[in-house]
Amino acid sequence: MTTAITPTRKQNYSEWYLQVISAADLAEHSPVRGCMVIKPWGYRLWENMQGILDAQFKATGHQNAYFPLFIPVSLLEKEAAHVEGFAKECAVVTHHRLELNKEGKLIPAGPLEEPLIVRPTSETIIGEMFSRWITSYRDLPLLINQWCNVVRWEMRTRLFLRTAEFLWQEGHTVHATREEALEETRKMLDLYADFGREYLALPLVKGEKSENERFPGAESTFTIEAMMQDRKALQCGTSHFLGQNFSKASGIRFRDAEGNEQFGWTTSWGMTTRLIGAIIMTHGDDDGLVLPPRIASAHVVILPILHKEETRADVLAYCRSLAEELGEVQYHGKQLEVLLDERDMRGGDKLWSWVKKGIPIRIEVGPRDIAANNVMVARRDRPHKETRAVGRPELATELPEILDDIQNSLYQKALAFRNENIKQIDSKEEFYTFFTPKNEEEPEIHGGFAYTHWCRDPAVEAQVKKDLGVTVRCIPMEGEVPGEQGEGICPFTGKKSPGRVLFAKAY
Amino acid sequence: MTTAITPTRKQNYSEWYLQVISAADLAEHSPVRGCMVIKPWGYRLWENMQGILDAQFKATGHQNAYFPLFIPVSLLEKEAAHVEGFAKECAVVTHHRLELNKEGKLIPAGPLEEPLIVRPTSETIIGEMFSRWITSYRDLPLLINQWCNVVRWEMRTRLFLRTAEFLWQEGHTVHATREEALEETRKMLDLYADFGREYLALPLVKGEKSENERFPGAESTFTIEAMMQDRKALQCGTSHFLGQNFSKASGIRFRDAEGNEQFGWTTSWGMTTRLIGAIIMTHGDDDGLVLPPRIASAHVVILPILHKEETRADVLAYCRSLAEELGEVQYHGKQLEVLLDERDMRGGDKLWSWVKKGIPIRIEVGPRDIAANNVMVARRDRPHKETRAVGRPELATELPEILDDIQNSLYQKALAFRNENIKQIDSKEEFYTFFTPKNEEEPEIHGGFAYTHWCRDPAVEAQVKKDLGVTVRCIPMEGEVPGEQGEGICPFTGKKSPGRVLFAKAY
Repeated sequence: MTTAITPTRKQNYSEWYLQVISAADLAEHSPVRGCMVIKPWGYRLWENMQGILDAQFKATGHQNAYFPLFIPVSLLEKEAAHVEGFAKECAVVTHHRLELNKEGKLIPAGPLEEPLIVRPTSETIIGEMFSRWITSYRDLPLLINQWCNVVRWEMRTRLFLRTAEFLWQEGHTVHATREEALEETRKMLDLYADFGREYLALPLVKGEKSENERFPGAESTFTIEAMMQDRKALQCGTSHFLGQNFSKASGIRFRDAEGNEQFGWTTSWGMTTRLIGAIIMTHGDDDGLVLPPRIASAHVVILPILHKEETRADVLAYCRSLAEELGEVQYHGKQLEVLLDERDMRGGDKLWSWVKKGIPIRIEVGPRDIAANNVMVARRDRPHKETRAVGRPELATELPEILDDIQNSLYQKALAFRNENIKQIDSKEEFYTFFTPKNEEEPEIHGGFAYTHWCRDPAVEAQVKKDLGVTVRCIPMEGEVPGEQGEGICPFTGKKSPGRVLFAKAY
Repeated sequence: MTTAITPTRKQNYSEWYLQVISAADLAEHSPVRGCMVIKPWGYRLWENMQGILDAQFKATGHQNAYFPLFIPVSLLEKEAAHVEGFAKECAVVTHHRLELNKEGKLIPAGPLEEPLIVRPTSETIIGEMFSRWITSYRDLPLLINQWCNVVRWEMRTRLFLRTAEFLWQEGHTVHATREEALEETRKMLDLYADFGREYLALPLVKGEKSENERFPGAESTFTIEAMMQDRKALQCGTSHFLGQNFSKASGIRFRDAEGNEQFGWTTSWGMTTRLIGAIIMTHGDDDGLVLPPRIASAHVVILPILHKEETRADVLAYCRSLAEELGEVQYHGKQLEVLLDERDMRGGDKLWSWVKKGIPIRIEVGPRDIAANNVMVARRDRPHKETRAVGRPELATELPEILDDIQNSLYQKALAFRNENIKQIDSKEEFYTFFTPKNEEEPEIHGGFAYTHWCRDPAVEAQVKKDLGVTVRCIPMEGEVPGEQGEGICPFTGKKSPGRVLFAKAY
């Protein structure tokens, strides 16, 4: 069977990923090392995510603001673990103009007194501003979010998953008490998980990171982890409880109701354009991208059948009026995004271009359909030849139902796949076998997520990372993973374990 | 008479501007030289502008995409005038990490092979990508927009008006013919002007820039110019016809219908966070910010009168339900943004804080109002003591009408002020007097816009710039400025002038 994407997922998963991106026209590399260009079909996914998340942030009392792109090195240094975590991979601005040298070459000029780094994240600069804004408990909680670009100078880049520059939102909040800050940290994790499940159809495991995997400077880091189709884990969002580390570093102090001066308790949390990678790798198939309807760049494409010159004008006119009509249909409080493809190209090529782009619904309209007052509807989550005649009068009602059905079936399929590939493992030997690729045909595909006891000794983490490239993805919250809860014995050390954790290879 | 802002506009306009920003909590300086922090009340204005413009860009066929923050120097160099224009003021990234030196100080490390500049604008990097995307006339027009941050290393900065980093949108399009590209340039200028007038209540003059004031690399630059209350001009948006300069520099070629290879015709156009400065300086008064309702950060604030402990709970409950009810009211297709100020502070301070923030409508509610089924409504465009009782049943209908009336009156007032201060000037002497401040009390305030003939000799521009700090703001399009159209005599040289232009001092 031929597939629209070569290689297939089984043949070479990482190459398949790049080919899906290219075939769907989502993004591409730029001439700037490690920086990508997000093309309209991909950027629309990010815009849709922004719209939904932004409304949810506002509904939970957060306000947007904007802080500088640059961070003076002296500010970054204030939190020791933080600077340690980011100094190795940051773009450094050292000059403020270019000038021609004697050979007529443009070289950096106007050296800065203090170098600036391009923000890899904004705890330090935002903390500095917060320390000026907050004086009293009446100023708390302070709940701020920023949509922006950040730069982390990755040496090995991968479109959407790891690029030198990426887009994200970063929430930063200050609270009067430890409890309130912890509550905020968990609330935003829940918001992320619900968003990922409802809109992106991603089955996510909520959990806490081990000390090794924590955000530099955080007291605890919570995460949502998804399983890709190669059974590797992708971290899809994090929410950090920063304790008083950054408030002490930045001097975020407030006077409490009794007039005593205290340090604030802070949190930060972020989601990035990496989520587009999660969508591709969770739902994509060997024919390309498959978009969950609630986040899709567009919902429906109308493909007029224009074989015969004599019916061409009528079919086009019919399709234009159909596009207009369907564009008014409501889907979860918004209008359907309906495209009409009038391009002059072979019908098969046209159809396949939309399959590869992952649009949820294709509607074909030819002269016979018009005569029968029908259109032919095809769903991206079904084989491409499977089409169904729907009467035009029923279409406006049926489309939202079909979309919801696609959304639900994508989620259920991904959930089943994930659950099949989470294994409760109780021996070291089985653990090592689990993470060894099963056969030569699928060299990249190993067991999946291991749900295993662990005594919490970081030496164990270090060893399995070294041996297998496997890390602790998270300590799942209760009920997040099918299987046993509670205490047990660590298969690596024979010591007591306070509970099972998820081990996996990760992006 | 005391004013909420000191100094007043007459006393010291530039200091008044900064005090309005501070009193309204719009923005502030950051510890990063030349970079500002946009605070929630200010950022909301930008978000509202983004929402409206973005919908209009999409309705005119443009799609959003995202391009790298960094531009390799070799790309910037491709267009000679362009690099000349931007090399003097750009942030240069030269290293990709920090490391500790022997003194324990963090210093730049990992030098880049080629320095990168932080984008001051993206013609070159976007042109490079477009050259890969376009092969045939079928790929045209290509209509792309980007929302992002840019950096221009200004030595003298001013909040919103001139900062090292600012936020903007930049449209970039490619067309098959000169005519189509020119049409796009003018279409986007019209879109900008209509947006400025309808939403920001800015009377704008559309016109073309003189050669001196053109965008570096453009064949022609169109602009919308507004008059601030100190009678200086503020450029509010520009639309550039780039001819084939950038397509030749970047190699944007296409095969036309006859199979011949041609260079594309490109445009670019942008609006920035500077528009927030335009709102402040056009509508603000000596009591602070005045926000046009259609762009306002919020429309209505409810101020409960909580003098007496025994009525406190009832008044609060009433106000909460009122806030909820009014939050459902539609205003130009969106819900009203209604705030309820429950802060525990003196009524006068509370009221003035909202006057200074420029919210269009304040609603006061006390026990007597509740009993009378009335609320007291005050408008920001009227003296603060002027309140009017409105029956609660009528409120939902009246509020949108009052908001429209405020919007209209702000525009009419600004238009009248601008027209009063545009003077048709026909002698050099009068021109020089016009641009000399009238009296010591208002040292910053001179005549306004001079609508004057000019022979188009750049030497005249250079001379008046040197003598008076005055430049040609634009060659207005027909009918944009009250007064005579057509040919005449240049008062500076006695030569023929093809038509009057606007001279002014500018931000």
